[in-house]
Amino acid sequence: MTDSAHDHAHPKDNSLDRLLFFSDGVFAIAITLLSIELHPPHDWDGTAAQLLRQGWPGFAAYALSFLVIGIFWTSHRRMFTQIRRFTTGVFLLNLLLLGLIALMPFMTNLLYIDGPRGEAFLIYLGVVSAAGLVQGAMLAWAVFVNHAVDPAVHVSRRVTAILSAGLLPGLISAGSMLMFGVVGGGVELWLPAVCFAMAVVILLARGLAEKRYR
Amino acid sequence: MTDSAHDHAHPKDNSLDRLLFFSDGVFAIAITLLSIELHPPHDWDGTAAQLLRQGWPGFAAYALSFLVIGIFWTSHRRMFTQIRRFTTGVFLLNLLLLGLIALMPFMTNLLYIDGPRGEAFLIYLGVVSAAGLVQGAMLAWAVFVNHAVDPAVHVSRRVTAILSAGLLPGLISAGSMLMFGVVGGGVELWLPAVCFAMAVVILLARGLAEKRYR
Amino acid sequence: MTDSAHDHAHPKDNSLDRLLFFSDGVFAIAITLLSIELHPPHDWDGTAAQLLRQGWPGFAAYALSFLVIGIFWTSHRRMFTQIRRFTTGVFLLNLLLLGLIALMPFMTNLLYIDGPRGEAFLIYLGVVSAAGLVQGAMLAWAVFVNHAVDPAVHVSRRVTAILSAGLLPGLISAGSMLMFGVVGGGVELWLPAVCFAMAVVILLARGLAEKRYR
Amino acid sequence: MTDSAHDHAHPKDNSLDRLLFFSDGVFAIAITLLSIELHPPHDWDGTAAQLLRQGWPGFAAYALSFLVIGIFWTSHRRMFTQIRRFTTGVFLLNLLLLGLIALMPFMTNLLYIDGPRGEAFLIYLGVVSAAGLVQGAMLAWAVFVNHAVDPAVHVSRRVTAILSAGLLPGLISAGSMLMFGVVGGGVELWLPAVCFAMAVVILLARGLAEKRYR
Repeated sequence: MTDSAHDHAHPKDNSLDRLLFFSDGVFAIAITLLSIELHPPHDWDGTAAQLLRQGWPGFAAYALSFLVIGIFWTSHRRMFTQIRRFTTGVFLLNLLLLGLIALMPFMTNLLYIDGPRGEAFLIYLGVVSAAGLVQGAMLAWAVFVNHAVDPAVHVSRRVTAILSAGLLPGLISAGSMLMFGVVGGGVELWLPAVCFAMAVVILLARGLAEKRYR
Repeated sequence: MTDSAHDHAHPKDNSLDRLLFFSDGVFAIAITLLSIELHPPHDWDGTAAQLLRQGWPGFAAYALSFLVIGIFWTSHRRMFTQIRRFTTGVFLLNLLLLGLIALMPFMTNLLYIDGPRGEAFLIYLGVVSAAGLVQGAMLAWAVFVNHAVDPAVHVSRRVTAILSAGLLPGLISAGSMLMFGVVGGGVELWLPAVCFAMAVVILLARGLAEKRYR
Repeated sequence: MTDSAHDHAHPKDNSLDRLLFFSDGVFAIAITLLSIELHPPHDWDGTAAQLLRQGWPGFAAYALSFLVIGIFWTSHRRMFTQIRRFTTGVFLLNLLLLGLIALMPFMTNLLYIDGPRGEAFLIYLGVVSAAGLVQGAMLAWAVFVNHAVDPAVHVSRRVTAILSAGLLPGLISAGSMLMFGVVGGGVELWLPAVCFAMAVVILLARGLAEKRYR
Repeated sequence: MTDSAHDHAHPKDNSLDRLLFFSDGVFAIAITLLSIELHPPHDWDGTAAQLLRQGWPGFAAYALSFLVIGIFWTSHRRMFTQIRRFTTGVFLLNLLLLGLIALMPFMTNLLYIDGPRGEAFLIYLGVVSAAGLVQGAMLAWAVFVNHAVDPAVHVSRRVTAILSAGLLPGLISAGSMLMFGVVGGGVELWLPAVCFAMAVVILLARGLAEKRYR
């Protein structure tokens, strides 16, 4: 909670630490609440076979949302290794991001109810895209408005980081929607594939970006 | 978790840190639980259009409560940059504040059930005002009873901080209630406006106060 | 997370810090989940008057449980200013304590369902007493088995702390049960009084104990 | 949050700390949510006797899951006293582990619904075994792929730690299943015994392992 670079003559300001605790809390709760609307089939006969056969779209939606929130968390973590002070602008954009993350259990519940075929999946992808945009805007605000980022990082790297944070979730969602449109009602076959592709693409991109930063 | 100003001859006392963890936890959980009572319409046909048309008062209530809890969190954070030790009085008033914050999901649920027109909105604003008063009382207790605040801060600034923490939520709520009274049953048109105004006024006031402190 | 008294030649052991994070998390979640089973009356007409008239036993149970968990939290905090290392025995007794604390939302739900008149209140007080005994056992284990407590503290003070941690919740619960027995079915009149008395007695006792330790 | 061994010329990287906060949060929420699906019997007459007589399988399942999550938490804690930096591989395997832990309230709910006799218990034990395998894989990845572990620890100790983390939950689950098969439908008698045995065996094994490491 302390920072040795901190000037101890000034009142101790742990605002950035508390923002991270608070954010980690919201991420952890949102990700754990995903399972709360997961229920066995109403006429469940107690067998594993029926549970998996009828319940698997629910489990796929759970896995997808778990992965999505996990990726947003690690993206948040990476951003805040660069952001060095608490500002009201970062707080408000972060609050907006958390507000979208905290909607994920509700969005996942829509998938449970509507199944992975309907418009629920499009709404879901829309919220994911919006969260990406807010995330990019937060980093941009910290960089260009608050100058709250390490000045040693070259401007081109900053712009790359902002664009990848802001646009990747949207691009991947758009790709998923295209697949969805092309395949029509058969999206349930594509859900695990989308899930896997989303992970691979984002993580490759991020991993490369992270290496470049070092 | 450590404090370099800490005397290591005495047993390590991380009480204030734990109070902040505990409080951040309650804020994070209360804000994330807001979405748990959010449900799609019972006869939902799976379209985004119906979801938004019938569900928007719920989403507006969610956004309002998210903003309210977020503002209380940042206000709590700001106060505890001044408060320097754990005291029983601060703990009890903080517990009372957290007890009102933890009621927010229930209050928001009342808005979901009753709609934004009825008395539920007045009860909601009453709880927000009460939380403000408790918050102001907590800071006043820390300043005048426990002397747990940096002595370098001038007394007029302290009084301003206590009054703004204690009364602003109530004044804004009172303003909202007046609008509510004047407009009668048409409050649902005013909900987003109130939400926006509340954010702007509190944040301007707080931002000015914070600048003045530096 | 670091401790300056820490020997950096050994692998960094933040086990005690993590135990406190984990415990604070459970306390914070249990206290915030109390409101999740709180619902307005089924035939609620949307007025504040009916909500308070019919819902007040629920609000009283909420306030009581909030106070009980809050007091256990501050008692836990106080103990762990004395306990200086992570041991398996402390972990297991702490896990048992958290298991009883995490039952509080369920116990409070029993009060919501059964009302404050029936045996539910006795079961509730039994769980509170049991949590007190576990808490006392945990401190005793840390003191006499693990020797994980500051050796400078005099043995009589340690014994007092163990007895007050272990027996006070039980004694207060027993007092409440006696009142309950004497007054018969009229416990709802006594609930706020019990609540107030419990706070005053525990806090006075604790406050005195804490002063003596300094 | 700071590390004295940290090079302050580089941007402050608290990624490992945040991973632990996030993980502790998920563990704490999953363990506390266990009680949320615990309900009194539908025709509950308000007596403690009926609550215990009809509700005890629920309480046994609650206690078992509380113990299981608690043991996974302490196992996680022990591993991360060895792992010294954040890597994407550890993050992903940790996310998978948390995804299985966050399923425990759902799995416990299956036990509440299906009773401790049916296949639900087998599914439950399967998830516990899988979580063990993921845990072992995470440690193996940190040791052999990322070299993120203290190099002073001898390779044979590392392998022992990986095998015990990865296989013990599975072996104990397999033992429980065997008992289950032998005893047939009488598993409810064995549930507390399994619970107790699981705790004793794992803790003895781990306690010995931990001693050996020091």
